[in-house]
Amino acid sequence: MHQNTISHTALTELVTQIFERCSLSPLHAAALTRVIVAGERDACKSHGIYRIEGCLRTIKAGKVAARAVPVVESDNSGIVRVEAKRGFSNAAFELGVPVLAERCRTLGIAAMVINDCTHFAALWPEIEMLTDQGLAAMAMCPSYASVAPSGGTKPLMGTNPFAFGWPRKGQNPYVFDFATSVAARGEIELHRRAGTPLPEGWAIAPDGTPTTDPEAALAGAMLPFGSHKGSAISTMIELLAGIMIGDQTSPEALEALGTMSLAPAHGELIIAFDPTRFAAGRPGDPMARAEQLFEAILGQGARLPSQRRFAARAKTMEHGIPLTPDEVKGLERLLDLGLDALN
Amino acid sequence: MHQNTISHTALTELVTQIFERCSLSPLHAAALTRVIVAGERDACKSHGIYRIEGCLRTIKAGKVAARAVPVVESDNSGIVRVEAKRGFSNAAFELGVPVLAERCRTLGIAAMVINDCTHFAALWPEIEMLTDQGLAAMAMCPSYASVAPSGGTKPLMGTNPFAFGWPRKGQNPYVFDFATSVAARGEIELHRRAGTPLPEGWAIAPDGTPTTDPEAALAGAMLPFGSHKGSAISTMIELLAGIMIGDQTSPEALEALGTMSLAPAHGELIIAFDPTRFAAGRPGDPMARAEQLFEAILGQGARLPSQRRFAARAKTMEHGIPLTPDEVKGLERLLDLGLDALN
Repeated sequence: MHQNTISHTALTELVTQIFERCSLSPLHAAALTRVIVAGERDACKSHGIYRIEGCLRTIKAGKVAARAVPVVESDNSGIVRVEAKRGFSNAAFELGVPVLAERCRTLGIAAMVINDCTHFAALWPEIEMLTDQGLAAMAMCPSYASVAPSGGTKPLMGTNPFAFGWPRKGQNPYVFDFATSVAARGEIELHRRAGTPLPEGWAIAPDGTPTTDPEAALAGAMLPFGSHKGSAISTMIELLAGIMIGDQTSPEALEALGTMSLAPAHGELIIAFDPTRFAAGRPGDPMARAEQLFEAILGQGARLPSQRRFAARAKTMEHGIPLTPDEVKGLERLLDLGLDALN
Repeated sequence: MHQNTISHTALTELVTQIFERCSLSPLHAAALTRVIVAGERDACKSHGIYRIEGCLRTIKAGKVAARAVPVVESDNSGIVRVEAKRGFSNAAFELGVPVLAERCRTLGIAAMVINDCTHFAALWPEIEMLTDQGLAAMAMCPSYASVAPSGGTKPLMGTNPFAFGWPRKGQNPYVFDFATSVAARGEIELHRRAGTPLPEGWAIAPDGTPTTDPEAALAGAMLPFGSHKGSAISTMIELLAGIMIGDQTSPEALEALGTMSLAPAHGELIIAFDPTRFAAGRPGDPMARAEQLFEAILGQGARLPSQRRFAARAKTMEHGIPLTPDEVKGLERLLDLGLDALN
């Protein structure tokens, strides 16, 4: 460690040790560490080391199987199923990737279902594992009932993230990953702590009326992005990535756990596309044509999604990952005390 | 015809005759008529008989092959390709449906690509043909470059519709179908004619600054719904349903035709899911669980998408389709004069 920065390797080692100290099997410790270090590497602090405690709390509460061994089921169909056996989703996802990639190359399109997992972490690290294979991919999952449908008054859907990626040769992929709510619950929490009102359109109070009061919003419901359109996409995610795959919806995930402070148990749906197969026999190279589209976006001063994340990545890969002294102390404390470090 | 209403059957016959009179083969006349009559049946006037002239203008301009015979290509993969041979997409879609359904039931997931078509009509009639088969489905396509990416200044993406459907037993399916722009171009046109300002957030002027002036908006660009999130989805549609399938993007479709007053030439991507296959071996019946979700949405006073359309359908199926005397006259004129009725 030098001047409050830590290398990617050293942070990986430290976080792995914390997770193993807290009873996670090496398989899960490694998979969880990868997404957490990826968060710090990309200056995506909301998905970095800040998340470690939530994972550990979920373990301590006995709500996740810390040493579960996920099992992949695949046949000649386009559905690859990974049974996570109540473990974290991350190792299940990684186990399924090569099978999904093979199915996708064979069929042109294939889906991966993760069942019976505790879900935690953003979807973009997963999407990037598929774009790394030259595949395009879509991923979605429910979360906790905290978002009212457009025109409704009560929490029903989750913040239901929707993510997509397109592979690019020799550079970072085109990737987006966003909540289908206007804002994340954590953002409302930040306004509550700061005592500042919410922007309009983020939330409704328990009586269903619009509110800018963070307390009322947390007791009420968040709103979907883009009004009825975002609400429809969020509903689609409950249907496809909850009900269709035979796993919990957002209201079921909340009811089963009874709290939003632990990581939720629900499934995930990933759809992979092989651009080579889809473009076969057609004019133009899809990789080159996509670059023209990205240039046209950038050329008029707009950004590509994840651009800030990739800029941070380039910087931290060269100079190390910056951590505050408090963050370092927090990690050391977790390493020392394990699950006993939690209140 | 009685008191300005026309039966579903009579309208079907009349519209079919108009299309055949205007050189469309019976195959295309029938497929186009089905979506146009479906629009009137559902009181979705923007996709009803109002669209006939646009189709005819595209024929008259020689921009669509009125008697093209679409060809389905399918192998053991998950991709069904329909080569529309420069004809309208509708007949191509209908030809591919049984093949897509078979592939989807065999593999659990399958995609249909329509290439080299002139695209016209909403996506919901197509989605409903798949939900009628007990399948869930997603559909998307580019259109004309008329929407600026979030943070940009110039038209690049199309209004790129995104549609989804989930089958329901014994009742109309859950279906949504929306433009990924805040508003449709036709809505801006209506404001221009009425001389009323646009709501804020719909469009930007040619210099890239926000505008509520319809003229400036039509000369400038529309904006995507939900800011950067809708913009990302619209970009995904250009990538998957334009570039990946080896067909035209929205800027290419506009450049090729040079006008937005004719129907655009680009492809379409449809993804079908077999809920029975995805839910196999998992607890709960996906059809019954989906009904619980819909009840929870309706139970808090929110609507399901397409609810108004289905209410109108129930009414017109019983009482006939209402047409104004001018609408009837317009149809009779088209039948009399054929393509010569167009200015």
